[in-house]
Amino acid sequence: MRISELAATTGSSVSTIKYYLREGLMPPGASRGATQADYGPAHVHRIRVIKALAGVAGLPIHKVREVLRLIDEPGGNTFDTLGRAVAALPPYLHDAGAGDPQSGTPYPLARAALESLGQVFDPGYAAVAQLERALQAVADAGIPLSDERLGVYGRSLMELAEYDIAGMPGEAAATVEHAVLGTALYEPVILALRRLAHQDAAARRLGDPPGP
Amino acid sequence: MRISELAATTGSSVSTIKYYLREGLMPPGASRGATQADYGPAHVHRIRVIKALAGVAGLPIHKVREVLRLIDEPGGNTFDTLGRAVAALPPYLHDAGAGDPQSGTPYPLARAALESLGQVFDPGYAAVAQLERALQAVADAGIPLSDERLGVYGRSLMELAEYDIAGMPGEAAATVEHAVLGTALYEPVILALRRLAHQDAAARRLGDPPGP
Repeated sequence: MRISELAATTGSSVSTIKYYLREGLMPPGASRGATQADYGPAHVHRIRVIKALAGVAGLPIHKVREVLRLIDEPGGNTFDTLGRAVAALPPYLHDAGAGDPQSGTPYPLARAALESLGQVFDPGYAAVAQLERALQAVADAGIPLSDERLGVYGRSLMELAEYDIAGMPGEAAATVEHAVLGTALYEPVILALRRLAHQDAAARRLGDPPGP
Repeated sequence: MRISELAATTGSSVSTIKYYLREGLMPPGASRGATQADYGPAHVHRIRVIKALAGVAGLPIHKVREVLRLIDEPGGNTFDTLGRAVAALPPYLHDAGAGDPQSGTPYPLARAALESLGQVFDPGYAAVAQLERALQAVADAGIPLSDERLGVYGRSLMELAEYDIAGMPGEAAATVEHAVLGTALYEPVILALRRLAHQDAAARRLGDPPGP
């Protein structure tokens, strides 16, 4: 299809698509002469991925490029590539508390939580810094994570995560794309579902369900 | 204590505390003469709440005021007050897809999901619009929420939410504060724990755990 059809199909503007091409975010179309190019389903798919990352997930363009490069060239170590791809997603923590510099143990709260859950983790993984900051914030607000709550949250979220991982495609490039989109785009679904589960549980507890 | 001590205790500046006082976010201290006022533990606590809302949770100041007013005057219907307080938290959706205007059914994706889960919900609650937008985004990206995934996510998050609700204090003002802080500040904890659960589950599946 022509670039105008590609724009119509994906709900993008021609100038946006030209921008993606200039930025090297997707391969050029097959040449059909000096001024025309032919685009196919792979371009439609790639635009959908770019829009999801740059739009809903809120990645800046250099992070979109980083993720796409990992999708295109996942390399031999899928576990490592997955970690790097997901680490390209927000939030970006530049000054996440690296723990007490005296003791030299980075991310003490996150480490203690993960060790208590018995989970395997790479201490350099971005989500460890993210967890540390989040745990520091709840502690600062006077509602620190209790062992009991950690147990409930850890168990519930592992059930959910195991379902996600079981659905991973086998092929490396597809796995990376699936992991990145599934992580970023399902986070708002999870937060909204939790707030709505609170409403349902509160209605049962307070005996005061919303009207019709 | 004096305002300078209050600042030192809470890690705030005196000018920030004066700003909170001017904005009516907390009551003035007890007068100790024309130019001095005396502050107590309630002020320390209030500053901690304001900092959590305005800082980590990212609320603009008029939303902080709205939440504090609901904490101070929760009214008789705690269920309703809780809903309004949590609705003051981000994300703020101004143009969340209200569904097909032809059919007149707002939030069709969110409604279908919640009805499938059998949950009680107020269709006007902000989290319904939030869920609608999130479900539209995953559908647009080609990874729509399947019934199976909805079942797994819904069950896991209800377990987690029931734990949260069981821990709610009985008194109305404390309940509102607890719900708002627990919702906002535990969301980053949940997202980080999910990413780390993915890492653990992926390591088990890919047989490629991170090194020491």
